[in-house]
Amino acid sequence: MNPDILTLQKINPIIKETESSPIRDMMKRMEETPDLINLASGEANFDASPELIENAVEAMKTGRNRYTSTNGTPEIRSAIASFLDVQMGVAVNPENILLTVGGMEAIYLATRLLINPGDTVLLPDPGWGIMKPITQRLGAKVRFYPLSRKKSWHINAEPILERIDDQCKLIVINSPSNPTGATITREAYAAILEKARRHGTFILSDEVYHNYLYSGEHVSALSFDALDHVIVVNSFSKTFAVTGWRLGYVIAHPWVIRQMGVYKETISLCSYSVGQWAMAQYLPRCQPYLDDARNLCRRNMEKMVERLNAIPGVKCPVPQGGIYVFPDFSEFEPSADKLFQCLLDSGVAVVPGPFFGVQGESHARIMFAASEEIIDRGLDRMEAALNA
Amino acid sequence: MNPDILTLQKINPIIKETESSPIRDMMKRMEETPDLINLASGEANFDASPELIENAVEAMKTGRNRYTSTNGTPEIRSAIASFLDVQMGVAVNPENILLTVGGMEAIYLATRLLINPGDTVLLPDPGWGIMKPITQRLGAKVRFYPLSRKKSWHINAEPILERIDDQCKLIVINSPSNPTGATITREAYAAILEKARRHGTFILSDEVYHNYLYSGEHVSALSFDALDHVIVVNSFSKTFAVTGWRLGYVIAHPWVIRQMGVYKETISLCSYSVGQWAMAQYLPRCQPYLDDARNLCRRNMEKMVERLNAIPGVKCPVPQGGIYVFPDFSEFEPSADKLFQCLLDSGVAVVPGPFFGVQGESHARIMFAASEEIIDRGLDRMEAALNA
Repeated sequence: MNPDILTLQKINPIIKETESSPIRDMMKRMEETPDLINLASGEANFDASPELIENAVEAMKTGRNRYTSTNGTPEIRSAIASFLDVQMGVAVNPENILLTVGGMEAIYLATRLLINPGDTVLLPDPGWGIMKPITQRLGAKVRFYPLSRKKSWHINAEPILERIDDQCKLIVINSPSNPTGATITREAYAAILEKARRHGTFILSDEVYHNYLYSGEHVSALSFDALDHVIVVNSFSKTFAVTGWRLGYVIAHPWVIRQMGVYKETISLCSYSVGQWAMAQYLPRCQPYLDDARNLCRRNMEKMVERLNAIPGVKCPVPQGGIYVFPDFSEFEPSADKLFQCLLDSGVAVVPGPFFGVQGESHARIMFAASEEIIDRGLDRMEAALNA
Repeated sequence: MNPDILTLQKINPIIKETESSPIRDMMKRMEETPDLINLASGEANFDASPELIENAVEAMKTGRNRYTSTNGTPEIRSAIASFLDVQMGVAVNPENILLTVGGMEAIYLATRLLINPGDTVLLPDPGWGIMKPITQRLGAKVRFYPLSRKKSWHINAEPILERIDDQCKLIVINSPSNPTGATITREAYAAILEKARRHGTFILSDEVYHNYLYSGEHVSALSFDALDHVIVVNSFSKTFAVTGWRLGYVIAHPWVIRQMGVYKETISLCSYSVGQWAMAQYLPRCQPYLDDARNLCRRNMEKMVERLNAIPGVKCPVPQGGIYVFPDFSEFEPSADKLFQCLLDSGVAVVPGPFFGVQGESHARIMFAASEEIIDRGLDRMEAALNA
């Protein structure tokens, strides 16, 4: 027998071959096919702020290229505390904050800390597909709470409340939602937090799309004085169009932050230094950029909803927030794979709906955080393919 | 009872309070005490190449601030393959390479993939202290193979060979060594690989200090045609003085790389984009910088060894490579804590020896990859404190 195979066979795979995210596969395809219009990636596809880039250049040229402390520099953690006060009117301290390698590491650290084998985790359906393998690999029993298509996918309290019990360790709430753009109301969040606390259940609040609200206000889990059982994940990547910088942060109880920090030492040691320096200077001055980005996304969203709804067999609800539409193609082409291939052949990359759960069948996630020119070209290509 | 405490108590700590690395605590202290001379961090404390910084500035200004594919751009993986050919005369393909968030993520992914609860892991003593908690948290039984102080800590085959058995899943070999600077010979490595293969044992070869050799040549695990049971960890951080960029890489069998890549998706998604673009352009032109860095480190090392050995009660062996000396202070002050505090009071941060294992008692790790001016000032302060 080939010793090659013998040695490798001693390894237990930690992932199944099917678990790779279709979004990541798409990234690879994009690198190989430059003409594709990328409406698949979960990132703001417009330019970063020139001022932010200048800050980063200055930080690089003045030697900010070394390790920082694991939790992040004092400067960036203070700047984040002020930013959250301004943006959401919530009061947190630097000791509640840990800088992470994008929102992804924040989620990894939070689930790694909270989940023991056998714990139940509640995830939204539809919801970001990566949460299922992450939590399952930690031994969690995954239960889905359905969002209702008939109610524009709004995140209602009832399907969550009726699934909370003493085995439920963690509920993931993502508002505005990836992929639907739906949000949660203050009343619904309060009801969920109240019951969750009684059962010792944590809330992982994924708020990375907090800047992208088109109706209503962003309701942060931080606004409830519930840090004893709330962990909030946020990210600069999505907000400031610098996903490649891998800079996110988590807000939690100081004891939780300390646990995550010491564990982070053995995963990434610290987060990207230059980005921490640049962002600490930029955050107090970022409001015009945030407003411009939100307004651009709103215009793109309205145009995309209108033009997609004009295609026979396509139903595209209006998202309340986020950077995606999640249209229903069931009357046009019920097979998500065939739909995906059809759009790909037309030169547009989207994400097939089933990645986001059972309710994602016959849907696709289409990203609209890009320049108007890209959105127009993408819509032209999609219209041509779908009206053919 | 306070519901605060009730909810938090439902969490099993994933780390013990004692597990935080003293090096990371030191980073925090450095941020708070600017006048300290930092000879503690495991990083090259001199300037990055202006050309590399210019490449990064250009990449930032031309919009390379977005996600890359998880494994890294095709450009950087090709550049690494060529770099390894030039530096070490080894042939690897881009499909053998995964970009990571520093060498740290590479180690995390490798151990996460290989170790099942109950597996034995062999670690060097003295060796990098972080490896013990990382592998123990995965359920490994840790055994140490002693390096011999009497033989200048050289990494000999015998103590490793006699500990390899069928339960041994992984051997960590770190040459040049952190903290001793000792290296391994080609003959020793060949003997270890041969026996390891027969027992289905993997080698995790930590080669992040490969550029810093002062006698002999760097023996890479890649030079043995053994990728069926070898995983090599490397890093740009240490080599190019950009630890804050968090850019490392792992070289392994394509099946291993694939497993690590899909798992990495749920930890960091991808590595720092700007650094990948900048480094891909820079690697073919980096030889003068590598030579200058090595020569500077050699001069610093020779000076440090000489001046430390001149202090009564201090014995400092000559390292063969790496960026640290690991002197024996037992005749001066056997308590590592007291020695550490004495040096700290004099304005110099070092790492207490016990972090590196039982054999590190009465030792300290002192980093010499810094400008000659910093090394001179650090030595002046240490001499004044130790001769007092």
